[in-house]
Amino acid sequence: MRTVDLIRKKRDGEELSVEEIDFLIQNCTKGVIPDYQLSAFLMAVFYSGMNDNEATALTLAMLNSGERLDLSALPGAKVSKHSTGGVGDKTSLIVGPVVAAAGAVVPQITGRGLGFTGGTLDKLESIPGFRTRLSVEEFTAVLRQHNLCFIGQTDQIAPADKKMYALRDATASIESLPLIASSIMSKKLAEGFDALVLDVKVGSGAFMKKQTDARKLAQLMVVIGRRMGKRVQALLTDMDQPLGYAVGNALEIMEVSQTLQNSGPGDLTQLCVELSARMIMLATPGQTLEAAREQALSLLASGAAFRKFQEVIAAQGGNTDVLSQFELLPNASSAREILSPRAGFITRINAEDIGQAAVMLGAGRDTMERAIDPAVGVILERKVGERVTEGGRLCTLYVTDETQLEDAAQLVEDAFHISAAPPEARELVLEVVQ
Amino acid sequence: MRTVDLIRKKRDGEELSVEEIDFLIQNCTKGVIPDYQLSAFLMAVFYSGMNDNEATALTLAMLNSGERLDLSALPGAKVSKHSTGGVGDKTSLIVGPVVAAAGAVVPQITGRGLGFTGGTLDKLESIPGFRTRLSVEEFTAVLRQHNLCFIGQTDQIAPADKKMYALRDATASIESLPLIASSIMSKKLAEGFDALVLDVKVGSGAFMKKQTDARKLAQLMVVIGRRMGKRVQALLTDMDQPLGYAVGNALEIMEVSQTLQNSGPGDLTQLCVELSARMIMLATPGQTLEAAREQALSLLASGAAFRKFQEVIAAQGGNTDVLSQFELLPNASSAREILSPRAGFITRINAEDIGQAAVMLGAGRDTMERAIDPAVGVILERKVGERVTEGGRLCTLYVTDETQLEDAAQLVEDAFHISAAPPEARELVLEVVQ
Repeated sequence: MRTVDLIRKKRDGEELSVEEIDFLIQNCTKGVIPDYQLSAFLMAVFYSGMNDNEATALTLAMLNSGERLDLSALPGAKVSKHSTGGVGDKTSLIVGPVVAAAGAVVPQITGRGLGFTGGTLDKLESIPGFRTRLSVEEFTAVLRQHNLCFIGQTDQIAPADKKMYALRDATASIESLPLIASSIMSKKLAEGFDALVLDVKVGSGAFMKKQTDARKLAQLMVVIGRRMGKRVQALLTDMDQPLGYAVGNALEIMEVSQTLQNSGPGDLTQLCVELSARMIMLATPGQTLEAAREQALSLLASGAAFRKFQEVIAAQGGNTDVLSQFELLPNASSAREILSPRAGFITRINAEDIGQAAVMLGAGRDTMERAIDPAVGVILERKVGERVTEGGRLCTLYVTDETQLEDAAQLVEDAFHISAAPPEARELVLEVVQ
Repeated sequence: MRTVDLIRKKRDGEELSVEEIDFLIQNCTKGVIPDYQLSAFLMAVFYSGMNDNEATALTLAMLNSGERLDLSALPGAKVSKHSTGGVGDKTSLIVGPVVAAAGAVVPQITGRGLGFTGGTLDKLESIPGFRTRLSVEEFTAVLRQHNLCFIGQTDQIAPADKKMYALRDATASIESLPLIASSIMSKKLAEGFDALVLDVKVGSGAFMKKQTDARKLAQLMVVIGRRMGKRVQALLTDMDQPLGYAVGNALEIMEVSQTLQNSGPGDLTQLCVELSARMIMLATPGQTLEAAREQALSLLASGAAFRKFQEVIAAQGGNTDVLSQFELLPNASSAREILSPRAGFITRINAEDIGQAAVMLGAGRDTMERAIDPAVGVILERKVGERVTEGGRLCTLYVTDETQLEDAAQLVEDAFHISAAPPEARELVLEVVQ
């Protein structure tokens, strides 16, 4: 088997066999295939696509290129959740405690933010003392005791994906559905779960701007998961405005704490209940979705989910006092209010621009090497559909380094679209793919 | 300007500007752009194509990446010829002397054979003593004195093309019209000619199997040449059977000698007259094609073209005695006749298979590093349209190393298609693109 022949085969739109995909990925992992052949192959996939068989084979091959957690010794169903990334998306930090409190085991390998979207790992690291670098033994021990643990991705998980992602980033072949789906699923499947709920974001603050593209991605990931013998569902959810009010790491931890104490933003709470309910349902044979929703709501109302979060924070070395005393979290040194230039209804809040402004303030990073400032970010005061008066507050920027403040302020102001008439109502959960 | 953005732009089907293409090629030449970005770019070009502006800019940038001959100090028009490569194609060795004898200057940078097609440089090197590695000064001196000189391509000519061709070969992006056209023209334009005649081969023994593809390639090369201020014409010519009777390096030198002495195969002579006439016409203001054809024929008949070839062979250190005493050329140690299994008309001779059989005997190479055997090859006894009796000779294989002889013999036998009815006549010159 020669790599150049496999590139040509894919280039000409033919289906690659499991053996051929294995050959490519194993040799990629070993470093035997030169990068210039891999990048040409990835560009050929960008154009020619892959069918479900190929995408599944690619996922499995990348999964097998590295370590995978074996949680079979832990009792009970293991269920996980993955979001394709958005602005203000802190659902993993709420859904995890809810589902763990419901009795399922939730192993969460979480990632860092990149570009305009945030990452759960960065948010957790704004909690003083919190450790995300645990050994597999520590991770399993926390899971066994608390049903929930968060760790960062290691270099040992799907190294072939890591290498190919870096190449795709440098050679403009990121935006390929089979490559995106297999990249996500190969890393996710390393968690060793039985069931998975995918939150595929759609809109201005998501990588998928169009619902049709998001639907195709969701369908492909569900197929891949099923073929791996997992129970999988996907929700397509709105990311045309930020989720909740807070965008920025410590700011989002505060909102997580409020939401777990049943006083969070309506949209964030609604989505977390929906995601939790589906995870509980998939983890619990015979459970109806309606019953699972009620269970999730009651776990939030009773404080059980909040206590679960406190337990896990403590188990991973974090200071749980921050969840009630927000001044113990990293704090920005100044704030800038953004006021509305006129009265009207908020018809749109461009989530990508809000995310980008947060990055400019230091809340995120353009490259994986950059350090972030956990304290800074944006707190929205108004969401889509709400009224604002002329001079009324649209949002507040929390700032430490003012270098890019003016540009960020302008970007945020322009992100708000204000009209005389109210916008049409938009659903938060757009579609279920199962 | 970032390479990844240019890859994305081409990937998305947009036109790259001259500056953008210059940026890529200059940085390719300097080794600043990593190979994995270049190969992804080339695959994007494979799929998205390039328009005439882009292909011309690419050609010029690759031409400018290396040295180019400056022949402006030589008096008279400089005219060159290029063939896209075929089986038994020795026209450069006949056309060059004819046109030089007509008074035009013919600078020929020639290449080696690769795969099933032969190369002029390999054929010339079967002449004992012949030197193809001349300095620019030597090349210019021979040209000045004899109007004709043959040298091999150097690493100093279009190094960007050399690098990109190697990458395309390893990453399955060879078969792209704009990449083929710009590769050919960037190397060819380094010769410093005023006029060029292109012989684009079509058929089983050519890279272009279909006439429509060959026409597009010819049109693109003509456009590129014109935009560079050159007079350019292209012929599409038949390569569905080998040209002439001889396939193999020394064997072809013998046939060249016979043809220059006006006793060569009909098809080879016809094509050489047509190519020569067009070169003479482009080099001579006011000359008609008909008058140029007559001039070419008379230069063959008078022996002037043969004497020109002898002069140039001698000037480049070769033993001219080989042109009349063929036993002084490298000779094979044995011969194998291939006989016809039945009587009938030859309807087809698969040229690629004949070329491949010659490679198996040692006349060509699969990789540029392999040495060749100048003595071996195939002499056809019958051409398409001719009759053969049962047991009549189809061709003879000339052999030194018998390792692959049986496979080669089988391939050659199968290359001949024999039917009861004669085939439809096929034109040698299929089309003129001007």
